[in-house]
This record gives sequence, C-alpha cells and structure tokens, in this order.
Amino acid sequence: MAQGLKVLTAVLPQDVKLETKEYDLGARRWHATGETLPDAELESLKQHDAILLGAIGDPSVPSGVLERGLLLKLRFAFDHFVNLRPSKLFPNTSTPLAGRPAIDFVVVREGTEGPYTGNGGSLRTGTPAEVATEVSLNTAYGVERVVRDAYERANSRPRKKLTLVHKNNVLVYAGHMWKNIVDKVGQEYPEVTTDYLHVDAATIFFVTQPERFDVIVTDNLFGDILTDLAAAVTGGIGLAASGNINPTGDFPSMFEPVHGSAPDIAGTGKADPTATILSVALLLRHLGYEQQAARIEEAVAADLEARDGSARSTDEIGDALAARVAG
Amino acid sequence: MAQGLKVLTAVLPQDVKLETKEYDLGARRWHATGETLPDAELESLKQHDAILLGAIGDPSVPSGVLERGLLLKLRFAFDHFVNLRPSKLFPNTSTPLAGRPAIDFVVVREGTEGPYTGNGGSLRTGTPAEVATEVSLNTAYGVERVVRDAYERANSRPRKKLTLVHKNNVLVYAGHMWKNIVDKVGQEYPEVTTDYLHVDAATIFFVTQPERFDVIVTDNLFGDILTDLAAAVTGGIGLAASGNINPTGDFPSMFEPVHGSAPDIAGTGKADPTATILSVALLLRHLGYEQQAARIEEAVAADLEARDGSARSTDEIGDALAARVAG
Ligand SMILES: CC(C)[C@H](C(=O)O)[C@@H](O)C(=O)O
Ligand SMILES: CC(C)[C@H](C(=O)O)[C@@H](O)C(=O)O
Repeated sequence: MAQGLKVLTAVLPQDVKLETKEYDLGARRWHATGETLPDAELESLKQHDAILLGAIGDPSVPSGVLERGLLLKLRFAFDHFVNLRPSKLFPNTSTPLAGRPAIDFVVVREGTEGPYTGNGGSLRTGTPAEVATEVSLNTAYGVERVVRDAYERANSRPRKKLTLVHKNNVLVYAGHMWKNIVDKVGQEYPEVTTDYLHVDAATIFFVTQPERFDVIVTDNLFGDILTDLAAAVTGGIGLAASGNINPTGDFPSMFEPVHGSAPDIAGTGKADPTATILSVALLLRHLGYEQQAARIEEAVAADLEARDGSARSTDEIGDALAARVAG
Repeated sequence: MAQGLKVLTAVLPQDVKLETKEYDLGARRWHATGETLPDAELESLKQHDAILLGAIGDPSVPSGVLERGLLLKLRFAFDHFVNLRPSKLFPNTSTPLAGRPAIDFVVVREGTEGPYTGNGGSLRTGTPAEVATEVSLNTAYGVERVVRDAYERANSRPRKKLTLVHKNNVLVYAGHMWKNIVDKVGQEYPEVTTDYLHVDAATIFFVTQPERFDVIVTDNLFGDILTDLAAAVTGGIGLAASGNINPTGDFPSMFEPVHGSAPDIAGTGKADPTATILSVALLLRHLGYEQQAARIEEAVAADLEARDGSARSTDEIGDALAARVAG
C-alpha cells in the first residue's frame, strides 16, 4: 500500500492536491474489536472519490468473516457492478505457458449478483440430514448494465471482440437470461463481434489459446475463477490489478490487487507491490487521469523488462516505479 | 465408439462373453422424433452392467436439450454420484505448460447435486424486470458418500493426499457443510493428508504446480470446470476419460470421454478415439477387470510414446491399441 501511494503521489500533476485518509480495517481490527466494517466507517468511506484497498485476510480469522464482512460488503454497499480485471502478459515476466502467447484481454466480472448475494441456508446443520443451499440471484437490471459496460469497452478496443462466458446448457435460467441480454445489447454495437463459451471450455482456451480473448463478460463466480487463472498465465497473481467500479459515480469505486494478503511475508520487504501499483493506474483512469494511468502502466512494463532476476525489496520496486513515472 | 468396442473386445479374456446393445440417442434421434431419452429406453439401459456413452451434442440442437434431457438425466436417474476424472500427463503428449510437470491426479466430482439439479427459475422472462435464479442443492447424505469414496481412493494411492476444493469464504452454507464433512470423514483415514483450496486458487495451482495434487474432491460445477482445465494441461481433451459411477451397484455406471462430439469432423476419420478407449479402461476397472484396465492404459501410454507426429486415422489408432492390448 505504501508503494501504491508513493507512485500515486509521484505521478500526479503538481497542481493536483491529493488528500488521503487511512482506514484501519482487516484482521488486526477484527481481533481487537470484533468489527469488520462499522457503519460510521462505511459512511465516511462514501465521501471519497475512490478507495485503494490493501489485500486483506489472515488465517487467524475464520474463513468468510473478512471476505463477507468487509470486502464483499464494500462491493455490495457501493454497488460495484463492474469488477474489472485486465490480463496482460508483460515482456520478461514468467508464464507457465510454453510459447508465451500474446495475452491482452480484460474480464468484466459482474460484482453485485450471482452466487455472491449470500442467499442460501442450511437446515439441520451439522447432522447427517443437513441440507445446504446457495442461491444465485440474477436480474435483467444487473446483467444488462454490466453487459453494456463490457460492450462499451469492447467497442473502444482495436479488436472489438466480446465473449460471454457462462454455463447455459446446465444453468439454463440464469444462462439464458445472460445470453438473451448479450444478444439484445450486442445489436447496439454492430462493430463488436460476439461469441459465447461455456465456462469449462473457457478455461481450456485460457491455457491453449488465450490470445483469442479481448473482452470477456461473465458472472460473479465464473469471473472470480477465470481471473485467478488469467493472473496465473500472465505472470502470476503478483501482477494482477482490479477495479470494483460503479460507473454511475453514485458511490466511490474501489481498486485492489487480485492477490491476497500473504501474512507470512508481511513486513519482510519481499512482497511485490506491482499489482497494487497497477491498481492505482486503474484508479487514475477511472477518475479521468488517463495520461497518468498510462504512465504507470508504461513504467511497470519498462521496469519488468529491465528486471534481471535479482531480488529487490518491496520498497526498491516502489522507488524504481516512482522514479520512472516522475521522470 | 467403434474403436472403444474394438479395444474392449480385444482385451477381454476368451471366456468372457461380451454382450452389447446399441442405443440410438442424441442429436439425430431428437431431430427425427423429438425424444431425448424415452422411459422405455431408460428402463432397458438399467439392465446393463455398464454403459459406454459416445460424445453427444450438435449445434443444431438448442443448448441444454441433450445435456439435460439425456446426459444429466442418465447421471441423475442412475445416481452417478462419483464422477471420476483421472488426469495424467502421458509421455510424448503436448501440454501447454512449460517444464512438463509430473501430473497424476484424479478428480472425484460429485455428480448428483450442487448447481446441477435444475433447481431455479425465471420470473418475468425476457422483460427488463426479469429475475433468474439457480439453486445449488447440497445434502450431507450426498456429500458424505462422495467424500468417503474420495478418501478410499486417496488411501489406496501412494501419496495419500486429498484436497477439497470449494469456495467456502463466499458460499458459506454449502462450503462449510463440505468442509465439516471432509473433516469428519477424514478422521477415519489417519494416513491421508487433507488440505483445502478455494476454487479460484486451485485453478492457479493447476497451471503452476499441478504435481501437488493427488485426489481432489469437489462439487458438481467446480468439478466440471476443473476437469476441463485438467484435461487441457494434460495433453488436451482428446485424452481425458471419465466415469459416472454408482459404487453401490444399484444402477449401471456410465463411462464417457470428457470431450464433446465434434460434429464438424464426424465421419472424417480425424477424431482421436483415445479418450473413449481410456473410458473403456475405467469401465473395466469398475467391473473388476483390473488387469485388462491396466493393459489398456499401458497400451495407450506406449502408443503415445511411439507417436511420431504423423497423422493417423481414428481407425488406425483403434487398430494400434487393439493390437497392443491383445499382444
Ligand atoms: C476474497 C474473495 C471473497 C474474493 C472473491 O471471491 O471475489 C477474491 O477471490 C477476489 O477474486 O477478489
Ligand atoms: C455437457 C455438460 C452438461 C457436461 C457437464 O457440465 O457436466 C460436460 O461439460 C461434462 O463435463 O461432462
């Protein structure tokens, strides 16, 4: 986080005054007070132009507590319906894929519906007669707005290609609704080529033909799975940035690395801050600072190209990138 | 399918009389009669020791019709709760992964529950006010039996390792039930090491460290996704075999390649029958013909090793494998 702010400060024009406020949320706070995201803090967060979220989570906190009480709570409270996750294979980074395909796509993951709504339950919990359900909730309202956002993005990219990923041969109700909405909205974008893949088939193409993708639009859970896989094939989770975007501007959008918190190396100076720094670029682009965003992305590409394999500390990488964007 | 039967016939001991009955099901039948799986045929299928299913599907049939009316209908009607999908990187096959990691794991995918139950619906279909749901149904009864099967398999393998894959930080009801049942059943298998991965993280390890997996147990949808990815990293969907198993023997088990029907190359002699032939091996193992199953798998490994990249027809591959298992 410190490196992200360092680069943000370095890249901003002199006349832009940056005001930041730090919120102490996450595992430490939960252990100390039992709180994840108190209402007062949620209200206060609402006042900002944007949020930069440090990776959260710690094995000492029961699974789901921080995810649902903090991260998902923010995504839902601020109606972050566009979960934006670009995937690009930068030069000189390692990919597990032989042949280094040219990967440059963006996943537009729905962020406020699907199986993530916390809708479900368990009956006779813990007994041999237990029944547990999870309900995926999908609305035309929610799907259409994210599909439209994805088409806008596809339309503004050189290849103009949109792929819907779902599983409409099994999840027929949600799947057909998604498909119909894509077909309908797609008519407004005659220059965009649209195709469809089942989620299982999509994972195959992620490793055998990732260059075929340009913009992918998909639901919350499929997007979660696909973007981790995308990060893995494009140099690892240490480089993957994401934005939780509310394009209406009614609420602040939130930017975060795709990776988790790696508490085992916290404070050792071993963490790569690049994913956070690339998230700062997405934040700047969202706020209209396109030039500055591009400058960070170019700096990261140049920095990766210059890496010679010798280990640098978190701080050193941050310094190097801050120097590049300032220069 | 013809090659599968050819190899099956070749490998069986002289004194075993093989009786087969062919069922004309799939796209052609549906076009001709509108039927997918009539009750009479379902009854008749019940009488067999096992079923070998040819890949079904055709773009001329609306998505979901054959999948739900035939394939899933059989899996559910015959209570195929163990969907068994071994993944092995054979020598001399191509993998998209650099470094050719040693991959040899098996996914035990639950086959009769989860998001595959057809439970869901749509309200105000086709309007801007549409709401569509998909309900994942999970029972302790259903989860425990497949978890137990997975532990049995892990316990009989040299590495004795079981990984539960789910998403219990978000899908808390189903996820916690799965986790609790794995913890409980695991106590009966003290020699088996158990771990847990979220499904998104699991996809990362599939491409960066697939050698870490031995037995994976997971739900119906996650298993669907993971096994396509597994097939992709182990030489492609052309080699991936699967069994839809009812270990109680109350109903016949069903064996099928993981891949689809490739109607574009049907009849051209270009399809690789290896996945079907490996499915025959799983069928034989299930019926107690362990030696014959192993013979087929060895033949496939030897055949792959001997391949020099020159194209062979479907028939030639079948002949070569039949000759190897007979010899
Ligand atoms: C931590 C978890 C709730 C989260 C998600 O599933 O969305 C994470 O995996 C992500 O992709 O941002
Ligand atoms: C065809 C489809 C219904 C099926 C599934 O989703 O189970 C297939 O993808 C598979 O993995 O066998």
